[in-house]
Amino acid sequence: MASLCAQKCIPSIYGRFGHVRSAVRAASSLVAGEPKGPTVKTQIPGPRSKELLQELNQIQQAGSIQLFADYDRSIGNYLADVDGNVMLDVYTQISSMPLGYNHPHLLQMLTENPHNIKTIVNRPALGVFPGADWNSKLKNVLLGIAPAGLDQITTMACGSCSNENAYKAIFMAYRQKQRKGDFTPEEISSCMINQAPGSPDLSILSFHGAFHGRTMGVLSTTHSKAIHKLDVPAFDWPIAPFPIYRYPLEDNKAENAAEDKRCLAAVEQLFEDYAKKGRPVAGIVVEPIQAEGGDNEGSPEFFQGLQKVARKNGASLLIDEVQTGGGPTGKMWCHEHFNLDGPPDVVTFSKKMLIGGFYHTAELKPPQAYRIFNTWMGDPGKLVLLEGVLEVIKRDNLLEQVKRSGDRLLLGLKQLQNEYPALISRARGRGTFLAVTCSSTKLRDDLVGRLKTKGIQSGGCGEDSIRLRPALVFQEHHAEIFLDRLRQVLSETK
Amino acid sequence: MASLCAQKCIPSIYGRFGHVRSAVRAASSLVAGEPKGPTVKTQIPGPRSKELLQELNQIQQAGSIQLFADYDRSIGNYLADVDGNVMLDVYTQISSMPLGYNHPHLLQMLTENPHNIKTIVNRPALGVFPGADWNSKLKNVLLGIAPAGLDQITTMACGSCSNENAYKAIFMAYRQKQRKGDFTPEEISSCMINQAPGSPDLSILSFHGAFHGRTMGVLSTTHSKAIHKLDVPAFDWPIAPFPIYRYPLEDNKAENAAEDKRCLAAVEQLFEDYAKKGRPVAGIVVEPIQAEGGDNEGSPEFFQGLQKVARKNGASLLIDEVQTGGGPTGKMWCHEHFNLDGPPDVVTFSKKMLIGGFYHTAELKPPQAYRIFNTWMGDPGKLVLLEGVLEVIKRDNLLEQVKRSGDRLLLGLKQLQNEYPALISRARGRGTFLAVTCSSTKLRDDLVGRLKTKGIQSGGCGEDSIRLRPALVFQEHHAEIFLDRLRQVLSETK
Repeated sequence: MASLCAQKCIPSIYGRFGHVRSAVRAASSLVAGEPKGPTVKTQIPGPRSKELLQELNQIQQAGSIQLFADYDRSIGNYLADVDGNVMLDVYTQISSMPLGYNHPHLLQMLTENPHNIKTIVNRPALGVFPGADWNSKLKNVLLGIAPAGLDQITTMACGSCSNENAYKAIFMAYRQKQRKGDFTPEEISSCMINQAPGSPDLSILSFHGAFHGRTMGVLSTTHSKAIHKLDVPAFDWPIAPFPIYRYPLEDNKAENAAEDKRCLAAVEQLFEDYAKKGRPVAGIVVEPIQAEGGDNEGSPEFFQGLQKVARKNGASLLIDEVQTGGGPTGKMWCHEHFNLDGPPDVVTFSKKMLIGGFYHTAELKPPQAYRIFNTWMGDPGKLVLLEGVLEVIKRDNLLEQVKRSGDRLLLGLKQLQNEYPALISRARGRGTFLAVTCSSTKLRDDLVGRLKTKGIQSGGCGEDSIRLRPALVFQEHHAEIFLDRLRQVLSETK
Repeated sequence: MASLCAQKCIPSIYGRFGHVRSAVRAASSLVAGEPKGPTVKTQIPGPRSKELLQELNQIQQAGSIQLFADYDRSIGNYLADVDGNVMLDVYTQISSMPLGYNHPHLLQMLTENPHNIKTIVNRPALGVFPGADWNSKLKNVLLGIAPAGLDQITTMACGSCSNENAYKAIFMAYRQKQRKGDFTPEEISSCMINQAPGSPDLSILSFHGAFHGRTMGVLSTTHSKAIHKLDVPAFDWPIAPFPIYRYPLEDNKAENAAEDKRCLAAVEQLFEDYAKKGRPVAGIVVEPIQAEGGDNEGSPEFFQGLQKVARKNGASLLIDEVQTGGGPTGKMWCHEHFNLDGPPDVVTFSKKMLIGGFYHTAELKPPQAYRIFNTWMGDPGKLVLLEGVLEVIKRDNLLEQVKRSGDRLLLGLKQLQNEYPALISRARGRGTFLAVTCSSTKLRDDLVGRLKTKGIQSGGCGEDSIRLRPALVFQEHHAEIFLDRLRQVLSETK
């Protein structure tokens, strides 16, 4: 048990929280107490999960549930379930657990600092009565990792809310540029009945395959799966093609550059078309990697081109980093890989950031109060946890760890696609934000299911891809376990 | 200090959290440690709040901020600020603090139960991997207080999200009734480009003066203030008049009944108009008391009539209890005052419930998974706190307390409007969810401002009303302090 001594805080945390410790664990784990590998005792979902699922189905639509977890016994990269199974988790709650489960530092933030507990109990209306330390938290935590050039910050509760409010800020800025002086009486009266000019006919341009959330504004810019959208009214807003590349990228440069051009030309055309339609484009929203839509990458040149088109047309560029932000690509923000000519106008975040919100330029700050506003405007309790996460990222050099683990994973995926070219292809991504395409949806679902029986919790995306979304504490030895189990299920595929 | 012995848990909590205790406090306070009254040391906002406000304005639009609070020193009904002022809070973070500040029972939930801390640190994707105790929490906490007849529960993070997703469930149920069998290929392909029939042209009927949130779907049903809506595109959905009554209600029965009829007839007409327009009404959304819009009440007969109109037209009735729910009207749900013929189809909540979500009928449960879904689907950490809140509501009979305090407040407001008929009128509401109308917007703003200088934190609503939104632990002696200070500012009005 010598390894437990490596982090001095562990014994007391364990003493107070009574973790079930694995007697044998990987010597080099960044999170003390991790087992050395997965343990599978039952089918997954196991009998207890199935019982609970049946019960839950009586009171809600529970068809999306995969298993019931035992969070008290989960640790680091390992997710425990109610049937005694312990899985290596490369999906981490749809990419929303930056340090995995029960990280000692986060538990410590809440058990050893009464102020943090009070911050959770006294959730304020941040837009009216922020707490004494709110400014310093915004500055030290959120602005400390802001994308270069973006010095304004608005907090929200979740990803959908962040995008919704960012769109609103974009519409407001767009109209503000056209306005001379105050709102007109016509604007004030017409907006109250949802009519122009107060409720103007403006649009946000999005991409096929995009996912920006599920509330009704952002859902109009989501185009990843029909089941997300069926039966819900939507705004008639422009939708452009997103590049579809040939892989490996290094062998298809000319063709992929032509694909970028095609998509950028379509974006320009849509600006024209929607201006003619009387529904001008106020902003472009785009993911640095389309995640839900299938881990579709865009090249740096594509994003540079988009920024030019946006600027030329007086529109804002919103980069949606809800899934890519917070480190999994090896940089804090994925768009930092793109060498843009200055910052995008807005960057939204949530998930691994634990709190939602958006960074933006001063131009996108509404000149009047109460326009971007709601009761809570985020949650200081989540910022307490994010502060702890950033401390660990720094202390343990986790962005470097992500690069190392990502390199190992990507190399392994490429080896496997060479071994099994009829089954998987297109290994791609940045950092540990990686995916492979399977030869069919059926095979993808089958592989994800069989990986579970080998103790790996993974997830799908798009029609036929498997995505990797491990925590930032995912290390090379975890990558070896994952690749080994993936090789097993591939070799057992008939 | 004998009073501290009344609650056995207090000494240890104080020992660990180091509250600054007031040596003198009201003997009968439900929250130990409350001061006996407000203390005002500076103008409000004071110099430190002003400094912090200036700083915050550099990084965000902070124009809505009233003061910076010291939440570590706030207690029960008393809000402390960074300048040493301590105010009796009858606004409680826009009505979102059910037990006021630092309630010992809530602090205890987090300091004495490691499982609860782990629940906060391991926030799951509830729609995929709920924790072992999630079912029992839903059943014991949320369904334990469900409106009669509603046995389905969907959790969300905030009020806007709850309404957005409830609208989506309404649209889905409406289309489901029209559908024979599966989605058609046309529906599946058209929804991906935001077009009918997959993205159908359906609407939600709302009321003038309503507030249902600020994301783009629900914002199309919000009509309380222009500043909430300006420059944001909106759906062209029907908007009906909400009753405007003559007060006192008991002296104007016939006239108010006629007002109900007029509004209900307008609702019926809008159903016809929008059906003809090709944009049928799938649901009606309504607040039991229009809060942001000015604390406008509807009679039980009005709501009974709405339910009939909805049923007759095959539309759902959504009662938005985001502000009214959780006890402030003296019942857990305000619509329980209305003697409806069976439950409404959906009831949404947030604020005092700490977690967002909606109760609904089985008919509004989508037959397919992933349709009402997002990453987090609420937050079990908030349900931990709500469980504590409900325990205290039961233990301390807080709904009875609300009735007693509300009776005292309403009586006092009526006395004051008789004394100052040129200044305030229309004292109204249920429980402690009360308001008075001022003779002008200017007077209202002035009274709210001067109440602060007397140590009362209140809030406005609508054009010219002051609203009371105290915590459920607001008692008769707090009411006396509030009424006394209100009498002072009225008497000093020139």
